[in-house]
Amino acid sequence: MITLYEFPASGHCHKIRLMLALLELEYVSIVVDGNSQAHKSPEFLRMNPFGEVPVLTDDTVVLRDSQAILYYLAQTYRAGTWMPADPGAAANVIGWLSTAANEVTRGPNMLRLHHKFGRAIDEPSATAITKALFQMLENYLSQHTWLVGAAPTIADIAMYPYLALAPEGQWDLVPYPVVRAWLGRVRALPGYVGMPGMYEGT
Amino acid sequence: MITLYEFPASGHCHKIRLMLALLELEYVSIVVDGNSQAHKSPEFLRMNPFGEVPVLTDDTVVLRDSQAILYYLAQTYRAGTWMPADPGAAANVIGWLSTAANEVTRGPNMLRLHHKFGRAIDEPSATAITKALFQMLENYLSQHTWLVGAAPTIADIAMYPYLALAPEGQWDLVPYPVVRAWLGRVRALPGYVGMPGMYEGT
Repeated sequence: MITLYEFPASGHCHKIRLMLALLELEYVSIVVDGNSQAHKSPEFLRMNPFGEVPVLTDDTVVLRDSQAILYYLAQTYRAGTWMPADPGAAANVIGWLSTAANEVTRGPNMLRLHHKFGRAIDEPSATAITKALFQMLENYLSQHTWLVGAAPTIADIAMYPYLALAPEGQWDLVPYPVVRAWLGRVRALPGYVGMPGMYEGT
Repeated sequence: MITLYEFPASGHCHKIRLMLALLELEYVSIVVDGNSQAHKSPEFLRMNPFGEVPVLTDDTVVLRDSQAILYYLAQTYRAGTWMPADPGAAANVIGWLSTAANEVTRGPNMLRLHHKFGRAIDEPSATAITKALFQMLENYLSQHTWLVGAAPTIADIAMYPYLALAPEGQWDLVPYPVVRAWLGRVRALPGYVGMPGMYEGT
């Protein structure tokens, strides 16, 4: 049985809900109470010493980190499609997982934490990272339908939530029609589920 | 033929030099001229649209991102050892690659960029992330010889350089004897190569 420990408003958790939906996998959602710091409790820290959601368990497997969970679900339940078998293509997917963990976290995710949740951040730095990221993607996706290869992979799923949620960080998507078209392709995948606040335009 | 485009002082590039040495792979090193912004040239941006080192090429394969390159080298040249075959263990490795791309980059890497190279950073944030990371690792490694499973994986190689270089960011390793012992285990691997500035104590 798959269990997902999550915050409803977290884009990292949305990645996993989206992947589970695309794979048509049943699971139990356990909403962790952030207000009472349940994710910092001894029980939770035994699952994830970083004290963060999401955590996914699948029988005896216990996983932290949204990129790790995407990798696990793809390899376990649909090997060779959402995670390419070819080492070069697979490594390119891993590169985008790094981008999701690095630039996306330091850029659009930080802007959203600031503007939606009031977190104090280094706003000039987060803005500069977000701008460089969107400019790069606007160019890259003008030559690629999906981030790696000819079909969607976990790279697209890992990158999607915080780009689709960027308007909640007061980041305007209008200047990025190519990125918006890619967001639309993800949104059109069979089984797609969104979350409140996500961009739904064209 | 394997070619590595790199900066000598980059910990991200050291990861790749270390992995290539541990795998006993021959390669050509091309030192990119950061002073002339060669990593932002049109030729370089065709290999990596982020305009960053390292980039590794292996015949027709072109890869950016140090985590992606580690994954490729392990899967291509020593599958099943440096990258576990079991999906649960493999996903745990991916989780540490995220940590290398996220917390290690935002913590000890930023402190080093500031103190060694004069980069303006959000120092309180980088210090807080570094402290939480080292405290977590000091606890985690007290129960684990290697980050995932009973043998070293690319998780250890991805995490190693900026932790070993932390003193260059004026981060004292003395309070972390368990982390220092793990650094020593990496340093004792057959074929290990270091770089200037790395911690070499016990």
